[in-house]
Amino acid sequence: MTNPAALVFDAYGTLFDVHAVVERCEMFWPGKGAQLSQLWRAKQLEWTWQRSLMRRYAPFSQLTRDALGYACEALALSCDEARAAALMDEYRRLALYPDVADALASLHAGGRGLAILTNGSPDMIAPLVAHHGLESLFDAVLSVDELKIYKPAPEVYRLAAKRLGVASNAIGFVSSNCWDALGAKAFGFRVWWINRGAAPLDRLGFAPDGLLAGLGELPAALPE
Amino acid sequence: MTNPAALVFDAYGTLFDVHAVVERCEMFWPGKGAQLSQLWRAKQLEWTWQRSLMRRYAPFSQLTRDALGYACEALALSCDEARAAALMDEYRRLALYPDVADALASLHAGGRGLAILTNGSPDMIAPLVAHHGLESLFDAVLSVDELKIYKPAPEVYRLAAKRLGVASNAIGFVSSNCWDALGAKAFGFRVWWINRGAAPLDRLGFAPDGLLAGLGELPAALPE
Repeated sequence: MTNPAALVFDAYGTLFDVHAVVERCEMFWPGKGAQLSQLWRAKQLEWTWQRSLMRRYAPFSQLTRDALGYACEALALSCDEARAAALMDEYRRLALYPDVADALASLHAGGRGLAILTNGSPDMIAPLVAHHGLESLFDAVLSVDELKIYKPAPEVYRLAAKRLGVASNAIGFVSSNCWDALGAKAFGFRVWWINRGAAPLDRLGFAPDGLLAGLGELPAALPE
Repeated sequence: MTNPAALVFDAYGTLFDVHAVVERCEMFWPGKGAQLSQLWRAKQLEWTWQRSLMRRYAPFSQLTRDALGYACEALALSCDEARAAALMDEYRRLALYPDVADALASLHAGGRGLAILTNGSPDMIAPLVAHHGLESLFDAVLSVDELKIYKPAPEVYRLAAKRLGVASNAIGFVSSNCWDALGAKAFGFRVWWINRGAAPLDRLGFAPDGLLAGLGELPAALPE
């Protein structure tokens, strides 16, 4: 395998920990934070797929807000506008996973082209990247929002190849979301799946080129 | 609202109880039946959406078998071929929900055209309908398999309108899967959502025309 010309990263769940909202949820609803965060994330994702298939796209910020409302209703938790706004705000400053900053700095210092390809709409992803001061590391922060369809539709991955001006098989794609990694693989990228939770591989007819337990392992795992 | 010219039913979760497999799961893996059944169903559905978006369709029977393997792996349950075959067999004789047989018989006796529109591939749905002796009640048992894309893609609902030769707004669609009901509503059917578990409404930009706690309520809920 030759050295990828560019590395493209998923954002939510890969660089940024979507469950970093648990602490604030726990403050609002003691004992319910983890369960709320799990259901919130699950519905947010389900609706990306369902709305894409229905051809009824709505931006990720709306889906995220809607999914919070659903999850609170399902768990019988009262969520007023102030709490919802506070939690949506958390989503714009989600913590980086501990090994991410060093890995990105190392890859960037090595002269690699780096980009983000995310479901997140610009109103969510831009403040998040800025919050962590990561703008200078990335050549591009690409959102599905301009296509109005979510991952793992092939046109999403095609957007990255086109914008970066790099052939598909020269792009290394990195995601912790197995279905996203395999969607990228189906499209033609070389793929590293960051499997932090030691989950089974999704059965989608494809396998990643590499499997890592954390993003910190990526610099050493790349071919010379 | 005028009387629908035809009623189209979802199968899995609406007529047939997908969690009827719990008993057999429990026999194989005591204490794990409910958890296994939940994860099995969740992955089966996720992959219908993801594979549709990836344009990598595989039949529902394969997804169901694959999802069983995934769920067993995730829960560290050993599943040999004999157990897998026994569980797949259960899927071909899933129990009807208790109120289904009477409701269908009543609707059929009233002279309504009835059909099934299902994600299930013919190798799964045909034996299941036959097992319960329901063939004579339905004018058609339609599967997404001929389209190679899953619900809630609009072409799936279009297939039913076309095959039954009935205008979309004259079809009454009945599903317990909220996202399926709303996908059908987005397409243009009149929709009854059977909400047996008192779940919140999915936020997909649409609402059902009617909401029932069970299929037994449907005959009385239909307009004259």
